[in-house]
Amino acid sequence: MDMKVVIDTIWVLVTAKLVFFMNLGFAMVESGFARVKNCVNILSKNFIVFAVSSLGFLFLGWGLMFGDGNPFMGLKGLFFVSGLDNSPAVGEAYKGVYSALSWTGVPLWAKFFFQLVFCGTAATIVSGAVAERIKYISFIVFSFIMTMVIYPIVGHWVWGGGWLQAKGMFDFAGSTVVHSVGGWAALAGVLLLGPRFGKYAKEAINPIPGHNLSLATLGTFVLWFGWFGFNPGSTMTADPVAISHIAVTTNTAAAAAIMSSTLTSWLLLGKPDLGMSLNGCLAGLVAITAGCAFVSVGSSIFIGLIAGILVVLSVIGFDKLKIDDPVGALSVHLVNGVFGTLCVGLFAQDKIAGVSTGNGLFFGGGMKLFFAQLSGVIAAGIYTFAVSLIAWGILKATMGIRVSLQEEIEGLDMGEHGNSAYPEFLTKKPAYSFLGFKSKE
Amino acid sequence: MDMKVVIDTIWVLVTAKLVFFMNLGFAMVESGFARVKNCVNILSKNFIVFAVSSLGFLFLGWGLMFGDGNPFMGLKGLFFVSGLDNSPAVGEAYKGVYSALSWTGVPLWAKFFFQLVFCGTAATIVSGAVAERIKYISFIVFSFIMTMVIYPIVGHWVWGGGWLQAKGMFDFAGSTVVHSVGGWAALAGVLLLGPRFGKYAKEAINPIPGHNLSLATLGTFVLWFGWFGFNPGSTMTADPVAISHIAVTTNTAAAAAIMSSTLTSWLLLGKPDLGMSLNGCLAGLVAITAGCAFVSVGSSIFIGLIAGILVVLSVIGFDKLKIDDPVGALSVHLVNGVFGTLCVGLFAQDKIAGVSTGNGLFFGGGMKLFFAQLSGVIAAGIYTFAVSLIAWGILKATMGIRVSLQEEIEGLDMGEHGNSAYPEFLTKKPAYSFLGFKSKE
Amino acid sequence: MDMKVVIDTIWVLVTAKLVFFMNLGFAMVESGFARVKNCVNILSKNFIVFAVSSLGFLFLGWGLMFGDGNPFMGLKGLFFVSGLDNSPAVGEAYKGVYSALSWTGVPLWAKFFFQLVFCGTAATIVSGAVAERIKYISFIVFSFIMTMVIYPIVGHWVWGGGWLQAKGMFDFAGSTVVHSVGGWAALAGVLLLGPRFGKYAKEAINPIPGHNLSLATLGTFVLWFGWFGFNPGSTMTADPVAISHIAVTTNTAAAAAIMSSTLTSWLLLGKPDLGMSLNGCLAGLVAITAGCAFVSVGSSIFIGLIAGILVVLSVIGFDKLKIDDPVGALSVHLVNGVFGTLCVGLFAQDKIAGVSTGNGLFFGGGMKLFFAQLSGVIAAGIYTFAVSLIAWGILKATMGIRVSLQEEIEGLDMGEHGNSAYPEFLTKKPAYSFLGFKSKE
Repeated sequence: MDMKVVIDTIWVLVTAKLVFFMNLGFAMVESGFARVKNCVNILSKNFIVFAVSSLGFLFLGWGLMFGDGNPFMGLKGLFFVSGLDNSPAVGEAYKGVYSALSWTGVPLWAKFFFQLVFCGTAATIVSGAVAERIKYISFIVFSFIMTMVIYPIVGHWVWGGGWLQAKGMFDFAGSTVVHSVGGWAALAGVLLLGPRFGKYAKEAINPIPGHNLSLATLGTFVLWFGWFGFNPGSTMTADPVAISHIAVTTNTAAAAAIMSSTLTSWLLLGKPDLGMSLNGCLAGLVAITAGCAFVSVGSSIFIGLIAGILVVLSVIGFDKLKIDDPVGALSVHLVNGVFGTLCVGLFAQDKIAGVSTGNGLFFGGGMKLFFAQLSGVIAAGIYTFAVSLIAWGILKATMGIRVSLQEEIEGLDMGEHGNSAYPEFLTKKPAYSFLGFKSKE
Repeated sequence: MDMKVVIDTIWVLVTAKLVFFMNLGFAMVESGFARVKNCVNILSKNFIVFAVSSLGFLFLGWGLMFGDGNPFMGLKGLFFVSGLDNSPAVGEAYKGVYSALSWTGVPLWAKFFFQLVFCGTAATIVSGAVAERIKYISFIVFSFIMTMVIYPIVGHWVWGGGWLQAKGMFDFAGSTVVHSVGGWAALAGVLLLGPRFGKYAKEAINPIPGHNLSLATLGTFVLWFGWFGFNPGSTMTADPVAISHIAVTTNTAAAAAIMSSTLTSWLLLGKPDLGMSLNGCLAGLVAITAGCAFVSVGSSIFIGLIAGILVVLSVIGFDKLKIDDPVGALSVHLVNGVFGTLCVGLFAQDKIAGVSTGNGLFFGGGMKLFFAQLSGVIAAGIYTFAVSLIAWGILKATMGIRVSLQEEIEGLDMGEHGNSAYPEFLTKKPAYSFLGFKSKE
Repeated sequence: MDMKVVIDTIWVLVTAKLVFFMNLGFAMVESGFARVKNCVNILSKNFIVFAVSSLGFLFLGWGLMFGDGNPFMGLKGLFFVSGLDNSPAVGEAYKGVYSALSWTGVPLWAKFFFQLVFCGTAATIVSGAVAERIKYISFIVFSFIMTMVIYPIVGHWVWGGGWLQAKGMFDFAGSTVVHSVGGWAALAGVLLLGPRFGKYAKEAINPIPGHNLSLATLGTFVLWFGWFGFNPGSTMTADPVAISHIAVTTNTAAAAAIMSSTLTSWLLLGKPDLGMSLNGCLAGLVAITAGCAFVSVGSSIFIGLIAGILVVLSVIGFDKLKIDDPVGALSVHLVNGVFGTLCVGLFAQDKIAGVSTGNGLFFGGGMKLFFAQLSGVIAAGIYTFAVSLIAWGILKATMGIRVSLQEEIEGLDMGEHGNSAYPEFLTKKPAYSFLGFKSKE
């Protein structure tokens, strides 16, 4: 076997494993930022969602995303990755129906596994925003829809040979395809669900602190670690210069965003808030994801700095709009997914790590690239938000998407799962007296 | 140096590191599923067991397993990996006493390190089943016996050029060699130890919930992640088609098992139990371990689905038999280790990822392969169970294997280690009033 | 692109990612060993410190460490890694100002990323020793100084073409450069800070147990895992024999140290203390770091055994000297960093894994190598301790380095960050009645 195929396959699989590991990161961040009474429910959602993704993307998602078809969706080899494919043959030698990925010389199942873990990331982003009130079964059903239909279509546009790719939009590792898509789907769910009981009562915004910042911090480190698979792995081929460059832009943006989000929270809230530092890190990572291979290390500092400020303002802003996102997922993935995608149009430098993108606005390329990016942002947003809204709406009208008020107050752990995450520890009873409402607990 | 040797060594070492990391997974799953008063004890056991394995396998285990010898055990280069060996030379060029692994062209210490982490996995499996009542020192001594004598002998039969290998039994990554061996050794210990105090009192089965489902979930994600080293790494050479195929069969079986175990618990217990979902995942992973390189991705769905059902029924079944396994280790590793090994005889397809296994029963190969697998299951079971029973029996008769009733009630953390895992948190006192028994606490 | 460059880059990046992941390990070990009221503070410090390192090392640290210059420090290409460099060209073909690393054929940003994660490790070591009383802002400022000036200078001496390298001192992966430097900087801080309130009151040494041994154990496993990047990765080139050898010496030393530290604590303290087992593991890893490529697997057992004993005695000894190190960082990193560096002078065997070191004392090489090692230990110690003392002193005189007594008693989480790590859990109030002092809590 050609040594290059061997090396590229190792690279693709090892980085895919790191991206898989991000599921742990999401599980810990989201459960850590939620209350103790909903911990089992969030863990359950974040655990089963990758199982759902694995089956949904295998069954249909892969085919819709990477099957040869029209600019809108794949049409060949739709089900169970069963189309013809002679990978790792590349270029002219490639024969098969998944030609959008025929540029990378790795076996078909390596391509599938790598793309699967990205699909899983988009799906798990939804989980945090809808936390603490969604019915377990409804989340599972939506996750199937997400991984079989919603994510793969946008993915086809940008990475599967679709119309946005043809238009010259660049999204290296998925600020739009993964993060903003996850964010838009989550936003649709959040709007149909409404805020958690007690969050916006009596004109005040009641802070609801997470139950375990140790695990939230752990989760953020795991996500940061996993991003070293997410971004450098998206080369899908072991190009030494590109993967080294990407590792450093990725890390530098995260570092800058940690500093700016910490400072912003210090100035605005009076103290350096750990939750803001953690979400700042994630914001920087999301923002650099689209452009990690296209911008300089110097530019990654600026992208990170802005992302860190943006996430703090966004968290505050969503609260003012009474859009209740318990973990800040919209601010991290949607806002910074959009921001990061646009940054390519501003900061890109042609062939800085080998790819011909043309220059962005700040490097003399004019608005051409920016508008291509913007069109991608808008198209992905409209499609994802609309289809998600329909999907959530149908679920709401049929099986329901929200647990009962009584169950929400007593916690989803007992209601949905019949047990509790820490049954031997004594915890404070939640206080709802300010609402004239008594919990049965 | 030949590039292939370099690449293969990277692959073997990187995957070995992932398998090493599974020690963290086991530690978190087992301590999470146990009570708070025994947490330090379980952490201590799961921490020291890999140190014991490292020394025991170095001292004797490796030699017994991979030394040239007879079909039953290795005889040359027994101690301290000190036999002649000119690895990474392969095939005809190989000169040395560890010829069972002469097919893979990596340095000797890479082979050793990879095999060591597998030995460590077998040893740590025992820990969970005997939890919450075993004496720390007795567990340490048994672990030395396990890694020096019990595991390496079975390993020699299947992977070290022994009689089961000659007979045509296939166990790609160790459903039998690692998981069922760990399970049989644990079963022997559980039977000699007896159930935990209070578990089966008054004809009822008292559920004893774990103290920390966050950590149990964390541990399961880590194990799932580590399995991407365990299974694909067992190629011990970076064959792109094989390692890509294995990554996907492994993941798909886990996904299917999560769905089926969750659904089974939902139907049988009324609610989707997170603990069952977690153990379902592990069950699927154990079941696909033997056949990950020999079965199709489609077959891996079925193997996973059945494994997920099997683990739930098995947990319930062991409880009916009053065999007390606090973390479900027997249901995961023993039952599904056996099941997975037999699945090779049912689902194998010749050369599906390159290896000539012949076809299993469902693919027209008749019963030949199934019977070879069955003989391996039985032989490994009889040997491991018998020797383990003798070893546990001698320990019981000499130093004792169970802590005193008083210590068990008050918790092994104070009794064995003199401290507690979370000394500042307030916890509920365990209720033994149903037994007419009062704790001194 | 040359295949060797591709492979080496993969190796360097993958191992660097594992070293990055050690930040999680340090965060969990240090917060686990501290009290619940200071948990957010420690998490915050350990989180932001890698952001600080990333920016500080990018801005200046790299240039001072690896820029061409004089034997004391780098002078060319100082800021923002902006000097000329045609990596991955090597040897004669190399043209640039970072010639100290011109022997390894990977892109410049791969070299930077790998060295950055080591710098980050040195900085995060400080965090644990100064825990539970240091001001957040002062720690951040010191970390900038550490990563921009202190660590890079010593690094230049040993790894950047400086005078200790010329003298024939060997420190393969940084027992001195990373661990003892981190330890000396921490010691200076600890001495200027003084012990925690209540620790050495009334002539007694009051034990202050950590709040979460589950997370401390988790952290230690993560560090052990990360060390398989730290030590084998320090080849910075994928030499199969060397990386396999190093993986096994590293692991064996850790295993031996776990056994000896557990036994030592069992004998001295009456019970096997989990904290001592964990720190024993880390001590063994630190001690083998300098010599992992230069000593035999057999020697690694002895180095580990001694390290495990040393760390227990050292923890007890620092307490007798009333030097308050909440997590044992000085005993692990400083004491065993020094010990491990000296071990090269004792146990080294020429070219055992390819490098010409000459033999150490125990293998017939006389005292030459030992004295070279000793000179490195002393020089690094004097420089780091002196500069750190000055830096801490200036901070103390200007912004202050210690929180108020009231804040220390009530916990740094509320004082520095305004929140708590586990707000819903009920915890015991700290008892200061033995001091005639009442907390406001």
